[in-house]
Amino acid sequence: MSQTAYRTHHATEVTEELVGRKVTLSGWVDRRRDHGGVAFIDLRDNTGLVQVVIYDEEMARPLRSEFVIQVVGEVRLRPDGNENDHLATGKIEVVAETIEVLAKSDALPFQVSTALENESENKLPGEDVRLKYRYLDLRRPSMQRNLKLRSQMSKAARHALEEMGFEEVETPTMIKSTPEGARDFVVPARLVPGSWYALPQSPQLLKQLLMVSGVERYYQLARCYRDEDFRADRQPEFTQLDMEMAFVDQEDVMAMAEKVIAAIWKSAGYEIQLPIQRITWQEAMDKYGSDKPDLRFGNPLVELTDYFRNTPFRVFQAPYVGAVLFKGGAATPRRQFDAWQDWAKQRGAKGLAYVVFAENGELKGPVAKNLSEEERNGLKKAVGAEDGDAVFFAAGRRTSAQELLGAVRVELADRAGLLKPDDFAFTWVVDFPLFKPTDDPDDDDVAVGHSKWTSMHHPFTMPSKDWIDTFDKDPEHAMSDSYDIVCNGNEMGGGSVRIHRDDIQDRVLDVLGITPEEASDKFGFLLEAFKYGAPPHAGIALGWDRTAAILAGADSIRDVIAFPKAGGGRDPLTGAPAPISAEQRAETGVDYDPDDDED
Amino acid sequence: MSQTAYRTHHATEVTEELVGRKVTLSGWVDRRRDHGGVAFIDLRDNTGLVQVVIYDEEMARPLRSEFVIQVVGEVRLRPDGNENDHLATGKIEVVAETIEVLAKSDALPFQVSTALENESENKLPGEDVRLKYRYLDLRRPSMQRNLKLRSQMSKAARHALEEMGFEEVETPTMIKSTPEGARDFVVPARLVPGSWYALPQSPQLLKQLLMVSGVERYYQLARCYRDEDFRADRQPEFTQLDMEMAFVDQEDVMAMAEKVIAAIWKSAGYEIQLPIQRITWQEAMDKYGSDKPDLRFGNPLVELTDYFRNTPFRVFQAPYVGAVLFKGGAATPRRQFDAWQDWAKQRGAKGLAYVVFAENGELKGPVAKNLSEEERNGLKKAVGAEDGDAVFFAAGRRTSAQELLGAVRVELADRAGLLKPDDFAFTWVVDFPLFKPTDDPDDDDVAVGHSKWTSMHHPFTMPSKDWIDTFDKDPEHAMSDSYDIVCNGNEMGGGSVRIHRDDIQDRVLDVLGITPEEASDKFGFLLEAFKYGAPPHAGIALGWDRTAAILAGADSIRDVIAFPKAGGGRDPLTGAPAPISAEQRAETGVDYDPDDDED
Repeated sequence: MSQTAYRTHHATEVTEELVGRKVTLSGWVDRRRDHGGVAFIDLRDNTGLVQVVIYDEEMARPLRSEFVIQVVGEVRLRPDGNENDHLATGKIEVVAETIEVLAKSDALPFQVSTALENESENKLPGEDVRLKYRYLDLRRPSMQRNLKLRSQMSKAARHALEEMGFEEVETPTMIKSTPEGARDFVVPARLVPGSWYALPQSPQLLKQLLMVSGVERYYQLARCYRDEDFRADRQPEFTQLDMEMAFVDQEDVMAMAEKVIAAIWKSAGYEIQLPIQRITWQEAMDKYGSDKPDLRFGNPLVELTDYFRNTPFRVFQAPYVGAVLFKGGAATPRRQFDAWQDWAKQRGAKGLAYVVFAENGELKGPVAKNLSEEERNGLKKAVGAEDGDAVFFAAGRRTSAQELLGAVRVELADRAGLLKPDDFAFTWVVDFPLFKPTDDPDDDDVAVGHSKWTSMHHPFTMPSKDWIDTFDKDPEHAMSDSYDIVCNGNEMGGGSVRIHRDDIQDRVLDVLGITPEEASDKFGFLLEAFKYGAPPHAGIALGWDRTAAILAGADSIRDVIAFPKAGGGRDPLTGAPAPISAEQRAETGVDYDPDDDED
Repeated sequence: MSQTAYRTHHATEVTEELVGRKVTLSGWVDRRRDHGGVAFIDLRDNTGLVQVVIYDEEMARPLRSEFVIQVVGEVRLRPDGNENDHLATGKIEVVAETIEVLAKSDALPFQVSTALENESENKLPGEDVRLKYRYLDLRRPSMQRNLKLRSQMSKAARHALEEMGFEEVETPTMIKSTPEGARDFVVPARLVPGSWYALPQSPQLLKQLLMVSGVERYYQLARCYRDEDFRADRQPEFTQLDMEMAFVDQEDVMAMAEKVIAAIWKSAGYEIQLPIQRITWQEAMDKYGSDKPDLRFGNPLVELTDYFRNTPFRVFQAPYVGAVLFKGGAATPRRQFDAWQDWAKQRGAKGLAYVVFAENGELKGPVAKNLSEEERNGLKKAVGAEDGDAVFFAAGRRTSAQELLGAVRVELADRAGLLKPDDFAFTWVVDFPLFKPTDDPDDDDVAVGHSKWTSMHHPFTMPSKDWIDTFDKDPEHAMSDSYDIVCNGNEMGGGSVRIHRDDIQDRVLDVLGITPEEASDKFGFLLEAFKYGAPPHAGIALGWDRTAAILAGADSIRDVIAFPKAGGGRDPLTGAPAPISAEQRAETGVDYDPDDDED
């Protein structure tokens, strides 16, 4: 497999078995050391490193970092004591007979050598420089590992899906705008001037059409697009592993998805225990203040609404009061508690109330003096604290207060070093509400209709069986057949049973305040399709960039994307986006005026 | 694998082994027949058909074509004489105990039943109706087969590439305009008003950057985009299997691609003999009048330029005269020869000269009288004809005359029924010129530079070794290291060794008349990357829609694409492209005026 016109072996294939044999190798000069007139080159290729020894000074003279060279030489054992146990090829070296420089390299803007990377990553320049010279950044072994991991992950998922009878179907990416809550990227249609395609936010409607088409088990690693304002860990284009099945219920999809996830993790050497645990959305919010709880550690929120029902403290006279324990927090200096206040304010909260249970049993902290004696006396027990601990509180609207405490819980664990990247805690979150209020000030999703309710997932989500007849009478409490898969506090993906009957779809759209005209304009084709025998169907999608980042233990999804965009959607490498010529613009038809056609 | 909430078995899993067992099936009512008060339903799912017998009239009454139903019933052998040998499940039937209608169907705009399809395909409506109701069109078994074949093909190719150590890397689709000869689709960048992304015509530059990044073996099933005027068998978005390798030469890539192609065909049950034959570009043009010759049959062109060197016939006093034999053509009626003239004129030729070798040895046809006696006497031998044959001629510029004869050759074979869709004749076409003249009136490719030469493949193609030093001194004769893979007269794909040295790249751009400023503006990032140690690399891409169509024996690539566009890029199903709202338009930034920012 390694044998090509330029090499007989890859670097890491040169093992002791080849001692005495002549090999031809090709790759980059990872590092050069000179010692007593002899040059030692670490030759790097896609598999790793091998040491090349050059006795001929003339031959060695031109070679610099990142030159591309072809080496012909004989394999020999390294002299005693010179073995390198950290290297697969550490027992041997190749004595160069000839070296051809295939390509030179200018001085590098930053170093990419394996050796340096192992010493310390923090010599890397800022991300804009890394992205501008992405082809150098990607040479670093950690980035090569990430790309390989992602490729392996796709392979593992595909094989698992193939075994379960899934067909890969490619769906178009130049489509009609779909109502999925984010802004579409649009593409002017030159041949129909004044008209535009949209790039898909997901293949949602198309995969549902495939179910109506009789495909039954569909998957695709689908490119999706959302024109959102820049957030640190979002990309304007992203990939999802998109799956849909006909004649199934929620349990079928979850069992299938678990097999895919287990196969992915197995490809990286991790065994996941199936089935994956489940938690209801309500329990996740109540215990972890998040619909994507991080279960690598415990320390659930404690609800104190009842406890403070008759409190004299105005702040705690709220629809919800809760707390999260800061184990051993009593020793925290005052200025650190002040920093927590700033942290909370940056998250949009007014502050972060706390008390300290001093080692001497005393109750301290700004909140303590506002509580009744009874409240003070019972507090330690109510929150499960011991002397030496501290407790953070939040009070207010249930959801936002819980989310604040949930964030505190994770921040505490992070500072305590409990968030190990290779410790994977999966959970399903199930029993989601079907709708959520549009006036939630903490929610930045865009409502798709004009009513006080919007979809928790999307407008095609099936109400749960108990609610089929009544969801429109009580939208606040109606539940849906939907499910999210969460790992380490990240939403890896989610899905739902879909509506496959036009009567139910019409009623959901009515609750959302989408008029029949709007519905017909935006996805009339789906409603029309439902008239011709649509099977029950359900599906799920995994965010592929996120999943790769979790598996790779990467800080950012940009570290598992070959050529990501920087902030504002800029690509420092190519300079995209860029102005277009007047001629190009004229051809797009964006300046088309229908009145010009009239005579 | 089949067991879900809605079924215990798929239709075709219900075999004699299950006789006496109760099964639950789900699917569509493919056909209903009533016989003596008993209803017979062909139940269709993704695997095929099974017969359901309903004795209860009440139960049977509501069921119509394409209703989605769930059947619980007992499997029994069909009564003697009622077996259907054409069906996998033809020995059994399922006696319905309960039937639940999961979804109803309105009357269909056209019939999709398996039974009807087997009888005749020509009851199908026009393509616009098929595309508008694509979800019904796709239910037809022949379309389901095409989708499955394509999925299987992707799987086979991926497995072959994985075995050869390829990594799948996803490249961005919102990029900078690249210089590949067709018009780009462009996407306004809201966050950088006045700027645009381009959708990629191919990942060409990005995959070359991956080679510079040290990936070494890359593949991707890549979505590509070209904003071209509508042609019958083009789509604005299409897929290619894109592959690139570092440290390889042309032979390495061809050997790799042959393995992939063999794996694809094997997945459909065909064995391809490797290695695939090769023909030079010059020989392909001379013998077959095409750079993608159909080798399912012989009958090569005969060059007569020398033969007619001193001809008195003005039309044949041309740089090139050639002929193609019409075996047995002497019996063709005159009006059919007249129709051939029209055929040639539709292709842009002035007409199509011919002679007939009558059974009595006489030379007939309009051209005969214009020839000298010597020419008439020797003609039969010169063209390899016998009495009873006819011969078509073309004279003029070499390339266009050969191409006309090449088209005649294929048309003759088609009319003679020689173009069997499941007879696959592969060939490599090699030894392409590096450049071609920009003033070729028969060539509708767009030149990328401003000189009289443009690239035969693309500007990143490596001159062949013999021409590295001299290609810019003699662009007319310079050859390249490039290769096309051709099957049955279709270009399935092509590739080349790429330039990996900036000095060679600069010289090629100079021949093309691309100024350093333009080069820097359009792909300066690639030239910059070549400064930091680019490995020798080469690659190939297969047109995936075309490959699927060839393998499926489909007339059109639209039959192997789930949701293709109709003419003009329209989608009759969703109505895309469509106008956007004033608000959406404002957000795109296309009307951004930099002067507005000044104060």
